[in-house]
Amino acid sequence: MEFETKIIVRYAETDKMGVVYHANYLIWFEVARTEMLDSLGHPYIECENNGLISPVLNCNIDYATPLRYGDVALIKTSLIELTNVRSTFLYRVFREGQDCENEQHACIGTTTHCFIEASNFKPVNMRKKLPEVFSTYQDILSSHKVNNF
Amino acid sequence: MEFETKIIVRYAETDKMGVVYHANYLIWFEVARTEMLDSLGHPYIECENNGLISPVLNCNIDYATPLRYGDVALIKTSLIELTNVRSTFLYRVFREGQDCENEQHACIGTTTHCFIEASNFKPVNMRKKLPEVFSTYQDILSSHKVNNF
Amino acid sequence: MEFETKIIVRYAETDKMGVVYHANYLIWFEVARTEMLDSLGHPYIECENNGLISPVLNCNIDYATPLRYGDVALIKTSLIELTNVRSTFLYRVFREGQDCENEQHACIGTTTHCFIEASNFKPVNMRKKLPEVFSTYQDILSSHKVNNF
Amino acid sequence: MEFETKIIVRYAETDKMGVVYHANYLIWFEVARTEMLDSLGHPYIECENNGLISPVLNCNIDYATPLRYGDVALIKTSLIELTNVRSTFLYRVFREGQDCENEQHACIGTTTHCFIEASNFKPVNMRKKLPEVFSTYQDILSSHKVNNF
Repeated sequence: MEFETKIIVRYAETDKMGVVYHANYLIWFEVARTEMLDSLGHPYIECENNGLISPVLNCNIDYATPLRYGDVALIKTSLIELTNVRSTFLYRVFREGQDCENEQHACIGTTTHCFIEASNFKPVNMRKKLPEVFSTYQDILSSHKVNNF
Repeated sequence: MEFETKIIVRYAETDKMGVVYHANYLIWFEVARTEMLDSLGHPYIECENNGLISPVLNCNIDYATPLRYGDVALIKTSLIELTNVRSTFLYRVFREGQDCENEQHACIGTTTHCFIEASNFKPVNMRKKLPEVFSTYQDILSSHKVNNF
Repeated sequence: MEFETKIIVRYAETDKMGVVYHANYLIWFEVARTEMLDSLGHPYIECENNGLISPVLNCNIDYATPLRYGDVALIKTSLIELTNVRSTFLYRVFREGQDCENEQHACIGTTTHCFIEASNFKPVNMRKKLPEVFSTYQDILSSHKVNNF
Repeated sequence: MEFETKIIVRYAETDKMGVVYHANYLIWFEVARTEMLDSLGHPYIECENNGLISPVLNCNIDYATPLRYGDVALIKTSLIELTNVRSTFLYRVFREGQDCENEQHACIGTTTHCFIEASNFKPVNMRKKLPEVFSTYQDILSSHKVNNF
């Protein structure tokens, strides 16, 4: 399953090169992941309200073509790895209007997460502690083969 | 009393106009205010560790000449208003190397703060709850006349 | 005329107080203003493509109730002042779901802008240089009375 | 050669987890890399003034222990890969006061860069176009073995 999010480039997100500053893609990944979880019926805020937080353990981004002010980013998000304690999301970012099948992405990246107790930052077993979220994650786990990454 | 802080412009702080994005001056004001409180022996983190937080109630900024990547910002911070519940800081931002007496600032701004309980966001009387901080604030309260602001 | 924009609070926009960091409202104001100009048929990017940029000359924000992660910000934008060289926008920010008529805003602010040549940062006469934009601005200039600001 | 940079955590850099928001480490990496290049006598701004810019091609970050407001980040930067067109920097981030030899880093990451013409975004051969920078890079190229990364 691949989930789509659109993000209008904000002026604040550009830098003096005239393009989107590279760190901002991580913020967009979070927006995309959050909207995906909302659409799956598991809003992230419910996790936090239940005393669990989900920090980023790793991120990896390959930048290809910069996005610019005036562009709309189209982010295709999928879950590509899942264990009892870790989940990895893949984000393929395009400029809206691109031929996403035949043209290269603007950038592509992954983030890996765990869930921890907010009170003591200790990791939890997702399958046990968040069985419904885990079950949903299993359903959407992608067999999507990602080329060149 | 006027306290000086230097901040090297970060690439991330620029926008596609090639200058420092206007919202970032508010972040710099916070850095300047924090360093001033540190130097006065009242680190802001101690307030938070004691269950008090100090939100911004108002900000007001006049932008004159933009700063750019490669510039160092020189921020002159002073306390210009003080009541039992509110304090207002003034920030005059220059480009390092400018003649601060005779040349115009890059920007000038104020932020007004109160202290509130972190647990319930209720305002506290600074004179009663933070007598030492209040006393220090009284000592540094500036009679500095600010032109054109 | 009042224009409405909705913004979903991003996790990245919060701070350790658990609320939206105060400088981010300035970024939201820009998003709201940009969407308003788009809806009026005068996308800001067209100005920049024509060699004009529109820096912020002043901002002023009164913060009342903080917004939090999980909230959607509802921003009501209007143009409240206009001269040949300057325009001032007013932003009233609410939490979506609030009774905007009878309950207090989350925050309220203004930004004042001019247009300048990108090549030399010299101000231009908006009425002469951007007659269509100026004419639209005249049409939407608000007689909206803003209480308590 | 390993270059050290200290960065005081800004309040704006925290999020509602109470820790430094993960995307901000990329901004810190840039600050560290910039200070390193300054210290080597090749300020990045000189490249830009000569019409070259150096975008990020890839970033990869492993997050271990979060940094918090009140902490000072100690960043140890080194150049670990160099070709005619690409250079990769390694950043090991510690909390100031840690035993950097025996305790785990807060996070560790890399960024890979090329140089391109600002006018057309075409890549340039660094050895030919920036021979002095390239020569310095060769001198500092680290044989530092990085465990677990």
